[in-house]
Amino acid sequence: MKPILLHEDRLFPADKTTRDIARNLYQSVRSLPIISPHGHTDPRWFAYNESFGNATELLILPDHYVFRMLYSQGISLESLGIPRWDGGESEADPRKIWALFAKHYHLFPGTPSRMWLDTVFKDVFGMTDMLCKDNAMEYYEHITNELAKPEYRPRALMDRFNIEVIATTEGALDPLTHHGVLKGSGWEKRVITSFRPDDVVDASRPDFEANVLKLAEMTGENTTDWQGYLQALRIRREVFRSHGATATDHGHPTAATADLTEVECKALFSRCLSGQSSAQEQELFRAQMLTELAGMSVEDGMVMQIHPGAFRNHNANLFTKFGRDKGADIPMQTEYVNALKPMLDKYGSDPRLNVILFTLDETVYARELAPLAGHYPSLKLGPAWWFHDSPEGMLRFRHQVTETAGFYNTVGFNDDTRAFLSIPARHDVARRIDCRFLANLVVEHRISEDEAAELAVDLSYNLAKKAYKLEK
Amino acid sequence: MKPILLHEDRLFPADKTTRDIARNLYQSVRSLPIISPHGHTDPRWFAYNESFGNATELLILPDHYVFRMLYSQGISLESLGIPRWDGGESEADPRKIWALFAKHYHLFPGTPSRMWLDTVFKDVFGMTDMLCKDNAMEYYEHITNELAKPEYRPRALMDRFNIEVIATTEGALDPLTHHGVLKGSGWEKRVITSFRPDDVVDASRPDFEANVLKLAEMTGENTTDWQGYLQALRIRREVFRSHGATATDHGHPTAATADLTEVECKALFSRCLSGQSSAQEQELFRAQMLTELAGMSVEDGMVMQIHPGAFRNHNANLFTKFGRDKGADIPMQTEYVNALKPMLDKYGSDPRLNVILFTLDETVYARELAPLAGHYPSLKLGPAWWFHDSPEGMLRFRHQVTETAGFYNTVGFNDDTRAFLSIPARHDVARRIDCRFLANLVVEHRISEDEAAELAVDLSYNLAKKAYKLEK
Amino acid sequence: MKPILLHEDRLFPADKTTRDIARNLYQSVRSLPIISPHGHTDPRWFAYNESFGNATELLILPDHYVFRMLYSQGISLESLGIPRWDGGESEADPRKIWALFAKHYHLFPGTPSRMWLDTVFKDVFGMTDMLCKDNAMEYYEHITNELAKPEYRPRALMDRFNIEVIATTEGALDPLTHHGVLKGSGWEKRVITSFRPDDVVDASRPDFEANVLKLAEMTGENTTDWQGYLQALRIRREVFRSHGATATDHGHPTAATADLTEVECKALFSRCLSGQSSAQEQELFRAQMLTELAGMSVEDGMVMQIHPGAFRNHNANLFTKFGRDKGADIPMQTEYVNALKPMLDKYGSDPRLNVILFTLDETVYARELAPLAGHYPSLKLGPAWWFHDSPEGMLRFRHQVTETAGFYNTVGFNDDTRAFLSIPARHDVARRIDCRFLANLVVEHRISEDEAAELAVDLSYNLAKKAYKLEK
Repeated sequence: MKPILLHEDRLFPADKTTRDIARNLYQSVRSLPIISPHGHTDPRWFAYNESFGNATELLILPDHYVFRMLYSQGISLESLGIPRWDGGESEADPRKIWALFAKHYHLFPGTPSRMWLDTVFKDVFGMTDMLCKDNAMEYYEHITNELAKPEYRPRALMDRFNIEVIATTEGALDPLTHHGVLKGSGWEKRVITSFRPDDVVDASRPDFEANVLKLAEMTGENTTDWQGYLQALRIRREVFRSHGATATDHGHPTAATADLTEVECKALFSRCLSGQSSAQEQELFRAQMLTELAGMSVEDGMVMQIHPGAFRNHNANLFTKFGRDKGADIPMQTEYVNALKPMLDKYGSDPRLNVILFTLDETVYARELAPLAGHYPSLKLGPAWWFHDSPEGMLRFRHQVTETAGFYNTVGFNDDTRAFLSIPARHDVARRIDCRFLANLVVEHRISEDEAAELAVDLSYNLAKKAYKLEK
Repeated sequence: MKPILLHEDRLFPADKTTRDIARNLYQSVRSLPIISPHGHTDPRWFAYNESFGNATELLILPDHYVFRMLYSQGISLESLGIPRWDGGESEADPRKIWALFAKHYHLFPGTPSRMWLDTVFKDVFGMTDMLCKDNAMEYYEHITNELAKPEYRPRALMDRFNIEVIATTEGALDPLTHHGVLKGSGWEKRVITSFRPDDVVDASRPDFEANVLKLAEMTGENTTDWQGYLQALRIRREVFRSHGATATDHGHPTAATADLTEVECKALFSRCLSGQSSAQEQELFRAQMLTELAGMSVEDGMVMQIHPGAFRNHNANLFTKFGRDKGADIPMQTEYVNALKPMLDKYGSDPRLNVILFTLDETVYARELAPLAGHYPSLKLGPAWWFHDSPEGMLRFRHQVTETAGFYNTVGFNDDTRAFLSIPARHDVARRIDCRFLANLVVEHRISEDEAAELAVDLSYNLAKKAYKLEK
Repeated sequence: MKPILLHEDRLFPADKTTRDIARNLYQSVRSLPIISPHGHTDPRWFAYNESFGNATELLILPDHYVFRMLYSQGISLESLGIPRWDGGESEADPRKIWALFAKHYHLFPGTPSRMWLDTVFKDVFGMTDMLCKDNAMEYYEHITNELAKPEYRPRALMDRFNIEVIATTEGALDPLTHHGVLKGSGWEKRVITSFRPDDVVDASRPDFEANVLKLAEMTGENTTDWQGYLQALRIRREVFRSHGATATDHGHPTAATADLTEVECKALFSRCLSGQSSAQEQELFRAQMLTELAGMSVEDGMVMQIHPGAFRNHNANLFTKFGRDKGADIPMQTEYVNALKPMLDKYGSDPRLNVILFTLDETVYARELAPLAGHYPSLKLGPAWWFHDSPEGMLRFRHQVTETAGFYNTVGFNDDTRAFLSIPARHDVARRIDCRFLANLVVEHRISEDEAAELAVDLSYNLAKKAYKLEK
């Protein structure tokens, strides 16, 4: 059996001088509290603080990074226990699933999943041998046993992981029950929600009309009327803010924005509600709504996150059998310069607007995003996202963005994950890579070691807190 | 005169620790047999085993990498002896051509051609001084004399180069005469063909109709009938398989696929045969045919290679005078996510489908290709291709692909060349660069040295054999 | 207070062996004269040789790299003293503006501006502490006092900076008064103009018709007639050549070219002159004009620079208040392969044509530009431009371009600046980065140290002189 690597100096560059500087910088930030301002953990965990289930349930079933790789090598999702949407059968024995995963752990070298998983196995559960088919059951039993202990409950892990604040993401229609339970517990400042209104804004969804009607029920507004609909969104934002939210999130296929007249908005909204809208009309409506939501951010101060560029559920067969979010989302080319102009013309110079831009299309880092963020006071750049939330991805982000946008038009790290146990590992990778990048600038005499030390703390902690308005 | 460089440590990185690891890894793979599953050598060479001609004929005239660079610096193709299509005159004296090339050898530093040529000059012909105008004739005479010796005949070089298997590429209408000659010689498993049906699938070609009629003659099918045409393709695939083919190759301008109804297919096919089809109809027909050919791959198990993205024969003047393939093919932006969806929806989840994707547009590595190959079991990624078959190109490929697709969704190296003598040099560059990339992962503690050693062998030998079904 | 860094070894790579080679190469080129064949300095400076004003006027107000970064962090252009176009008020006290800039100098680490500014502060003015709020006034007074001395006048600085020749850029309607003054002064070969006809070629400008009429006045041609208009352009080119111009410059939104019939040209030109043209017609007219201008270059030998891809004045609010060129130009995706074909089909094989291509879209370096320049004798590649005129940007350019285009299809460095004092700093960065890139090739045994030494001189000096026909 091979040992888990997880070397103290992992991800630092080969050159000794640079590595020494990177290591020093990292020492000063490795133990800083974690700010997790954008993610997908389940608020239920923190509200009720119950034990997690078994190793398979916690570490494989929700991790589409893991099962997309296994699936790409011919392992069926059924055999991995992913539940069939259409009623077909899936493997139910978590031990069998874990064994299958362990047998194929050799597929992961060079991927961020391997480093995250090894970190969880070693740092959270104390394993020392690398997972393989021979120790699969030992791993399974050990992890599953540990999970039953009080020190592995969600709130204990929040403390152990030194997570100062974590934001979950809820749809506009979410009753926020679990965040409600947190109120008064002392945890309500540490576990906050974010407002993601895609379900009531994206008219291409089959449930759009139904969602707009639910919005009426929840707010008492007439949401079939354009102004009533906007007012209902304002009311929901207010409710989210009262559950800690400081940010909104928008996962549109493109970054398109629009600035229509009120008459045009009304007609377009009616058309979308009629269920007869074309794909173009739906795109225009999403575009108009980004501008409307920017206007609401100007009013209420919520930070607006724009996450465009994914072709969702690309694999038609898989979608039919298993539904959404099964590792089949594929990035597409994404344009920002023309797309954002209508919104920026309307609100981009308002000092109250704060927009954080993300991309899955790295070609825009140097060409579009850094020049935009290096100019507009309302724009900042989110970290390397999703497939690019990886050592190479983060390095490319810094190398391509820094010269034009500087550091202070970026916002620190987001883990963006539902894999709660991997959060420290993900922030650790980001901190290591940022220290590496800074060390390189020091060695090339582009910044001083003092400057690097300040920047390391800003990138690891301060910028996220400031950009997401988490300084209280 | 300067010496040829060709240092033992060439292409390894500067850092001593990393270089040592890269060198060790390389020692274990440098002598592995060469698998050359995709290329453009002439099967005639291996069938008849005759001597190659002179240095100019073998090393300059067929190498469009070489003459495109010379042409870009104002040297006419006529003076390089490239035959005029239109009957104009070209230089006929191979010595004069060689002298002209030698005089401009200083244009090549930093290009892969320079490393390939130097390797051929030194390792194949034993030269030690770098080519220049002063030693041009010495080079010419020495190489030309050597080529006359038995140990420079094609089959002797196959052994000397340790090429286990080489695939040539033939059009659907090729009679495969030379591969036929190889049958029973003991070489038929070592020199195999590949099926490239562009000439009978691409209705934008002026000879499309004539080609479809030839296809009828060769197969006895009524190829003006849609089903007869498809059946004829199946018959040709069968013939190619009987000449060793395990793979097909498709060099369309884009990656577009389509999934039309049979009625639509028939109408479109008729339209294309009529010679009246528009560019859009031709594109749609190519798109539909990729899906049809994927269906045939599902039936007969042939591996499907998709090579899109070249604007062929961009230089109109050159094309008029010299015809195709004169170094004037220029890459274009290429989209895969939407383009491949019709084919993937129909066949992408079938475990019998094996598609290898190539690109000339590096922007899709991290954005589209790695996410697609890291998900679909039917998709794997071909190596850095053509202009990117170079040290920097290969490094960019690994850096941008590995984190999302891993190593096992890639297929090792293709030399893709008609320059037979450069094949060992090209595989050597690929092995060095892969070892370098792996050494870097080791030094950064992302994989262990043991893992790197296994991966080095897989990338140099096993993956190509497996992906192209050459394991017998 | 922190010292200004400006280490002797800045921008060289960490690895000691590579750094030593880079340093050696750099020693042989650091003092070579500066060739500045494309820029935006004011010819008035060199014509009248008057003192520059104060520190703020010279170093902040004209530098949109500086104020775009400050603006992006919420500092208003008014407070930076940028004059309002619409008559609004702006800060008038240069000391207050300087203090504001100094207070925010911590925003610049990692940007090229920081290195350029530090070099100016230290090498030109002898400062040793880094600018900060505490030494702001000391800086201001010292620089402003120095500027009053004779040795800081423009011509003295030309000598001190060792600028052999500098090209300014003037519009087609510019009377070239200041260049006229230089005639006979002995400076007319050292300060030359370039011909930029965008104002009389771009029909989307509100002043297009008026400009075409002015062109008539200046040339005596009937410029409302297509042939008269072309003739007028030829006449202006002639005048520019008599003021030293060897090159033209074309800053179109795209690289589109066209090759219409004369009848179509006449109709399109009339339409554009009518003020009723659509955006498509304006684009087609610009496209046709690039081809016409290429034809004129074939006639008169002027080198043609194509600089496409900027979305000009993206920020509508800023434009309304402050006008053009306020740091709000944002790059867009730019296509070259199809765009240039009409021009290349017409003139691309003519040995008299010399076109230098630039881009703001790095994705085309390896995909389009290097393959085009590595084939067409008429095409060469300009250096990394604008946002990419930076250490990382230059490295990406060399890494992505060299393998396919070699070094001799590139043209050395352009500073492209109106910030006269930063010119040595900018060329110094380019020389350091080129030496670094070459040193890396040496260490990886891809080129010899001798070859690198020759290439370093070519990249720093010879190529620019040759490509811009400045060898007299």
